[in-house]
Order: sequence, then structure tokens, then C-alpha cells
Amino acid sequence: MAATSWEDSVKSLKGVILDMCGVLYDAGEDGGTPIPGSVEAVKRLKASDLQVRFCTNETQATREVFVAKLQRMGFDICVSEVFSPAPAAVAVLKERGLRPHLLVYDGVVPEFDSVEKANPNCVVIGDAAEKFSYQNLNDAFRVLIGLENPVLFSLGRGKYYKEDEGLNLDVGVYMKALEYACDVEAEVIGKPDPMFFQKVLDDMGIQSHQILMIGDDLVNDVGGAQHCGMKGVQVRTGKYRPSDEKHPTVTADGYVDNLAEAVETILKLRGQ
Amino acid sequence: MAATSWEDSVKSLKGVILDMCGVLYDAGEDGGTPIPGSVEAVKRLKASDLQVRFCTNETQATREVFVAKLQRMGFDICVSEVFSPAPAAVAVLKERGLRPHLLVYDGVVPEFDSVEKANPNCVVIGDAAEKFSYQNLNDAFRVLIGLENPVLFSLGRGKYYKEDEGLNLDVGVYMKALEYACDVEAEVIGKPDPMFFQKVLDDMGIQSHQILMIGDDLVNDVGGAQHCGMKGVQVRTGKYRPSDEKHPTVTADGYVDNLAEAVETILKLRGQ
Repeated sequence: MAATSWEDSVKSLKGVILDMCGVLYDAGEDGGTPIPGSVEAVKRLKASDLQVRFCTNETQATREVFVAKLQRMGFDICVSEVFSPAPAAVAVLKERGLRPHLLVYDGVVPEFDSVEKANPNCVVIGDAAEKFSYQNLNDAFRVLIGLENPVLFSLGRGKYYKEDEGLNLDVGVYMKALEYACDVEAEVIGKPDPMFFQKVLDDMGIQSHQILMIGDDLVNDVGGAQHCGMKGVQVRTGKYRPSDEKHPTVTADGYVDNLAEAVETILKLRGQ
Repeated sequence: MAATSWEDSVKSLKGVILDMCGVLYDAGEDGGTPIPGSVEAVKRLKASDLQVRFCTNETQATREVFVAKLQRMGFDICVSEVFSPAPAAVAVLKERGLRPHLLVYDGVVPEFDSVEKANPNCVVIGDAAEKFSYQNLNDAFRVLIGLENPVLFSLGRGKYYKEDEGLNLDVGVYMKALEYACDVEAEVIGKPDPMFFQKVLDDMGIQSHQILMIGDDLVNDVGGAQHCGMKGVQVRTGKYRPSDEKHPTVTADGYVDNLAEAVETILKLRGQ
């Protein structure tokens, strides 16, 4: 395999950020299944001299529930290593004194327990999946259109993700719907928002050019990381599609078939 | 009342095109109710020397069923005077040999009876209302994303309309959702598409500058008509909102409180 730009930079790496769904596991109705080799790959990475963090736009469960699911799959992971949009949104809402109308999956509602929600003055949407009924979207629309200054937060801007049986629409699609309906631009909390990535960088305490992001979403993982000065590698698992490799605006620093191959390459080049 | 540009042009008018929902009647779960004065206004207009047509983005019923509903409300109207998106879409599908996956309201499905639908190679969405479930939108998305050249038709591009109890999301919102999900631009069949208005103009056989469009949708009725060289007046009924009068890109040629006032003004200025 010819050396590519990300392989050249592997020796100077100090940390790796991993996307979760589509990199560690494939989502499914039964909670999902690990992608072959990923459990072992995470273990090897955490045993190396590299810092490891997990950065997800997952908003269907609280971080605690979500991390417990990954642990049951065999992953060496804990809550403090995981960055997800809902806790970041709660911080923003409190800072700005905003009371959200929530259109989110039931499982993530407890993340918002500490936030005042009566008489809402903004809308927060997450990956609500089948909760994105016409009625629920219309209810969120009516809150927004009734506000003098409509404020819409979207927990990520993903287009779709892969579950066992195929591709499923993600929150970004409904964000676009409400943006158009109300002539408003959503504030995105989650990848690829630079503010969101910055929280992970702050926690790692290292420079962005010393960090590699590995994800299956070309725009939100790879493009978002590159925008912050990191390297970004796309795995050919999860929602990866061959057309990603000819994307008009985002070019990954490298491609690997899966996380196992990425970690094997990284550790080999670092002589570990 | 000061003379405005549309009033100056009233004497040279040869025809009037009326939007339906929000101008003739207000939609509602019980089928809707006539807007006060509109039944009489249509009668007076049709008794004048002006040609009258009806142009709607209504896609919840076949034209036959829809017109029968208006007749029951007391309106003097017949099917041949009404232009709606579904029959126009059927013509386009047949012309281009396309087989649609339909995401439309049950009531309009019979309009597509004569179109081959097996093994779909395009998607047609209409105002599907509560049929816009997550599952149904995802099904349409999967058809589109699976096509080498995704083709999406949207029966109108409206943002919302008014029903008894408030504003409801319209087809344009879901068009934007699928456009974003699949990186595709929808082909709009219905107002404000110029091709759609042209069918009405062809039927009337008069020049566009001799025609006045009266509607409650600033962008789709008024803006669409103006784009084709007609005058466009907005009624302050239906989905009208005061902020329309300060819209950044579309300025109506005039405002009236309702259709009755528009017709009263037109006939008075023409000495009828």
C-alpha cells in the first residue's frame, strides 16, 4: 500500500478520536453488533501511547445507557471518554436561559431533566427516528413559527445512518425541513460543528494537528475534523459509500477498510 | 384607498386566476368552510366579462372529489376550470417513461391509476400530511438513494397552510428534507413553477399581462404569477401573515382583506 498523507503523519500523532456508530458497531434493532475486529482494535489503541476519545452524534440514549451498551458488546470504554451532543446542548441552553421544546428520542430525554421546559422559547431536535411523525414535526414547527425570534438547535446535521436492514434518515434531514418551513438557520450542536470538536480537544490537551479522527461519515467526521486542523480518515464500514471517495468538497486524508486496519497501520508505523 | 399598481391595471384585465385554499375556503378536518363573501365573489366574477380559472397546489384528493367538495360549499366551479399538480405530473411521468414511488395522500392516488408503478425509477411527493411518517419518508429516501440518477418530483413547494386549528406543514418542507438527504434538486410540479402556470395561460388564450392572480401564498401564488408576467395580489386570509408585507424578495402588486374586497374593487373600477 502506498504511503498516504495520514500515514506520513502517524509518527507525530498524540491522540485518536473515534466515531462510534459505523466504526465500532453497526446499529440495529437489537441494539447493534460490533464490527469485526473493532473490539480488539480499541483495546490495542488504548494500550498504546496514544490518547483515545470517542465522539458521537448519537442522541437516542443518555451517555450512560449508550456506553453500557458498548461495554456489553465488549468495548473498553467509559462515560468520561465519550462526547455526545445532548450534554453539550444542555450547557448551551442553561447559559442562554433557553427553555426547549424537545423533539428527540425518548431515551435521551433524561439528559434534559435539569432544564426548564415550560413555555418554550426554542426547539431542540435530535435523531428522533420514528418519533419524527407528521404530528410531532408540526408541533415543533408551530412552536418555532410562533416565536418572534425562532431559535432551532439540531443535535448534529447527519443525513442518514446505516442500520441492519438499510439506510435510515438522520436528524439533519428534519433540521433542513424546519429551516425551510420557518426561514431560520439551525444552530448545530455535534459534529461537524467546530465548537463541539473543540470540547474534545480541550479535554485531550493536545494540538489538533497531533490528532487523527476516524469515522464513517465523510462530511461530519472527516470534513469536520479537517476543518479543525486534524487529520481525518474514513473507514469503509457503516454508512460509507464508494461515491464518498469522489466527493466534490471533502477529501479524506486516507481510507481503510475498517477500524482494525486503521489501528494495525498506526501501530505498525509507530513500531508498536 | 390610494390607487395601487394592480388597480391601475384592472381596466386592461382579461382574466383572473384564483388560488383556492385560503382564498375560497379555509381547510379543516370537516372538509373546510367557505371564507365569508367568497361564494358570492366567485359568482360575480364569473358573471363579468373576465375569464376565470382556478389554480391550486391541492394534492389531497382527485380533482373530481375536490371540485365536488367546493360545489357542496356553494361555489360555482367545474373540473375543467381547475388546474392542479397531479394531472400535470401524470403527463410528465408518461412523457419521460418514469415509474413513480408515490408518497402522497390516499385521496390523490387514483389520479395515478394509469401510470406504471412497479420497479420505481423516481419518487413523487405531494401534501401527504399524516402520511409523512418517518417510515414512509424513509421508504421514499431509500428508493431515491438507490437510484443511479435520483429523480424527485414535488407537487408544489409550499411551506405550510392553514387549517382550522393552526398552521400545518406542506409538501415543500419534505421536499427540502429529501433534497438534502440525497443531494438532489427536486423538479417542482405546481405553483410557482412557470411551466405549471403556462398550462393555465394556454387554456385561457390571453397574454400574461392581462391576467391577475389572487392568492394567500406570497411566494407561490403572487411571486410565481409575477415571474410569469402577471399581476399578483395577496389576500389577508388563509396563511397570510403580516410579515408577508415586508418580505425580502417578493412584493405583491396589492393587498385586499379578502376575495370579496378584491372582486368588489375590480368590478367597480371596470364600471360593472
